[in-house]
Amino acid sequence: MMKMRQYFLPTLKETPSDAELISHQLMLRAGMIRKLASGIYTWLPLGLRVLQKVINCVREEMNHAGAIELLMPTVQPAELWQETGRWDQYGPVLLKMTDRHEQNFCYGPTHEEVITDLVRHELQSYKQLPLILYQIQTKFRDEIRPRFGVMRTREFLMKDAYSFHLDQKSLEQTYQLMFETYSKIFSQLGLNYRSVRADSGEIGGKISHEFHVIADAGEDTLLYSEHGDYAANLEVAEKEGLKEGSPSPDGKGKLLAMHGIEIGHIFQLGTKYSDALKALVLDANNQPMPLIMGCYGIGISRIVAAAIEQNHDEQGIIWPQAMAPFQVAIVPINMYRSENVKKAAENLYEKLQKQNIEVLLDDRDERPGAMFANADLIGIPHRIVISERSLKSGVWEYKARSAKESTLMKPDELINHLF
Amino acid sequence: MMKMRQYFLPTLKETPSDAELISHQLMLRAGMIRKLASGIYTWLPLGLRVLQKVINCVREEMNHAGAIELLMPTVQPAELWQETGRWDQYGPVLLKMTDRHEQNFCYGPTHEEVITDLVRHELQSYKQLPLILYQIQTKFRDEIRPRFGVMRTREFLMKDAYSFHLDQKSLEQTYQLMFETYSKIFSQLGLNYRSVRADSGEIGGKISHEFHVIADAGEDTLLYSEHGDYAANLEVAEKEGLKEGSPSPDGKGKLLAMHGIEIGHIFQLGTKYSDALKALVLDANNQPMPLIMGCYGIGISRIVAAAIEQNHDEQGIIWPQAMAPFQVAIVPINMYRSENVKKAAENLYEKLQKQNIEVLLDDRDERPGAMFANADLIGIPHRIVISERSLKSGVWEYKARSAKESTLMKPDELINHLF
Repeated sequence: MMKMRQYFLPTLKETPSDAELISHQLMLRAGMIRKLASGIYTWLPLGLRVLQKVINCVREEMNHAGAIELLMPTVQPAELWQETGRWDQYGPVLLKMTDRHEQNFCYGPTHEEVITDLVRHELQSYKQLPLILYQIQTKFRDEIRPRFGVMRTREFLMKDAYSFHLDQKSLEQTYQLMFETYSKIFSQLGLNYRSVRADSGEIGGKISHEFHVIADAGEDTLLYSEHGDYAANLEVAEKEGLKEGSPSPDGKGKLLAMHGIEIGHIFQLGTKYSDALKALVLDANNQPMPLIMGCYGIGISRIVAAAIEQNHDEQGIIWPQAMAPFQVAIVPINMYRSENVKKAAENLYEKLQKQNIEVLLDDRDERPGAMFANADLIGIPHRIVISERSLKSGVWEYKARSAKESTLMKPDELINHLF
Repeated sequence: MMKMRQYFLPTLKETPSDAELISHQLMLRAGMIRKLASGIYTWLPLGLRVLQKVINCVREEMNHAGAIELLMPTVQPAELWQETGRWDQYGPVLLKMTDRHEQNFCYGPTHEEVITDLVRHELQSYKQLPLILYQIQTKFRDEIRPRFGVMRTREFLMKDAYSFHLDQKSLEQTYQLMFETYSKIFSQLGLNYRSVRADSGEIGGKISHEFHVIADAGEDTLLYSEHGDYAANLEVAEKEGLKEGSPSPDGKGKLLAMHGIEIGHIFQLGTKYSDALKALVLDANNQPMPLIMGCYGIGISRIVAAAIEQNHDEQGIIWPQAMAPFQVAIVPINMYRSENVKKAAENLYEKLQKQNIEVLLDDRDERPGAMFANADLIGIPHRIVISERSLKSGVWEYKARSAKESTLMKPDELINHLF
């Protein structure tokens, strides 16, 4: 798919001094992101490939669950936020702006107002329910202290979904469906994650769950029962009078603690927004009823950083297969001094490409050590080394990114092994 | 792919009174877009499907041409725009905002500053050139009088590409490549388009071409020679002392005029931005040289409206195959009163779906006339009607959206005919 010399992959040898978190350091070093301003990042080509992997997985599973995609604007009129009262309540994280006609707008940090405004005009009858609408859209939160790279940015990409129901039972069914869909998404992305009960905070509603990637660097503390199913974030557990080491309420041992990075949050909103915006539909008796709503977020950009926190070593990133920007790295040794090596490398490149395998050929005139270090840094799951020696002996040197040692394999064997 | 009862497709019978342009009317009526605020639109599911068709086609051809995708932020720091002088020059279409720390930003209407800032830090040597970077990203222009739906909005989606070169010759080669790539994109989308010489206006540079969809409603006038290759927009032609009816400068007859909707614009920028931002690379003699740049835009959202201006009739939209949100509409007659019809419709739906054909099954309990009108309005290229009568006679009623009359075909014959 790509040859390094034609690619734009500005990797760094040194760890940038202003990056504390390992994922932030590695994303900068691997040429995935660059900072434009505080909390505002450009996704470089390698980073964008990973982001698109996440987007595609999320989109596929949301569609599979029957959710319907639309795209709402990033710039939202103040009037709607005033109708729900959040224009003032939301506080300074809401980035406000004024257009040339002195009208007030904000850069949407979330879209409850916009979607509820849409459906109050477009839904009339309970027969159109339940309905799940979602989008994958850029958002902005004017964080007071953005940090940790794309882990806590101001401009970020999110998947947000909203569901609409006539009754609580239908909401609960869809909530359960979204819970399962989220579990599927994070499993497919190859993440070690955990769902916990959570508070719904400023979004509103009663029942909510967070999904966390388990990582030492996680800012959130999760409490879970040693042998049972109890799992809640620290906030909720403390409200229930529990702390680390307490007996688990389910009687299954003690409560243990771990750290997590929040990557998803689902809410049973109820009628908070439909009441405020008067979003009603007619029920079977022709009575107007406020829509019962759920909302379901996934932090798309954040998942990329969280995955790195969970999957790295001293040498760099170790992508789970599903998120890897390329599947295979071909590293030819001295291809500019050996016609055989050059030919073999390019043949393999063509062959893998024809099989729709995403392959990155390191065709730079670099020392082998530098090329190995690069492949390790950017975390490509499979590395194939081609050298005069390996060609002579009829085998290739293969190394999985997660393995310590490389192994020698015949070309056909290797290709079968990989795919 | 979709059953109407589960879909969110709020079509309108009446033409909205505030929409002058036919594409605007049809996009509202077909449930493709809804206005959130002046010049700010939500893309409803049907509209988004079309938008994604355009995005996919553009992405595929840009990648094919060797351009590399990245994603730059929508929110851009004032400092960069001050460095190029455009913070003041750009005028009131630049939507400015101030964050919580009193820092100034704008919502990017274009990304020359940001990309040039990126490459001045990341490109060092002529060996890394030529390089074409592109993105598909939301932009904002605070138009004084947004109108015509997504034809002239404030928030819109654009593909913008930037190329970097050591010398003019390399720029010219890439410019030619982009010219051909644009031609390929617009041909593949099924549009009747024309490229013309243009002025580069506020963007800068000398040589530029516009790509226009030919449509009576187009706001731009294009002059072209009756039998030759001369083609320029009115502005350029007038500067050359030409007008409609003038003898064509190529000696091939008179100049004729037509109306166009601008959907693409390519520029040879030269060093305007690299001079201002000091974006230099070392040449073969180790001398620092300013990067020579090109830039290449496609109005993604606007293409959707332009395609409708060019392809519609009294009944609604007539999508070119490549842009159609669904390929096939299945219209069963009285499926809730005939088990046979229901079964046949659902079988066909499953069958087409398995072949990865995008199919919309109208499973509403509606009059046939209403379902036909709906399929015509939203412009699905192929319509298959299933009724008791057609089942009895072993044929199906097929109509191409662009055809006047329907024809009767055996099921297998029809499927072969279609795909």
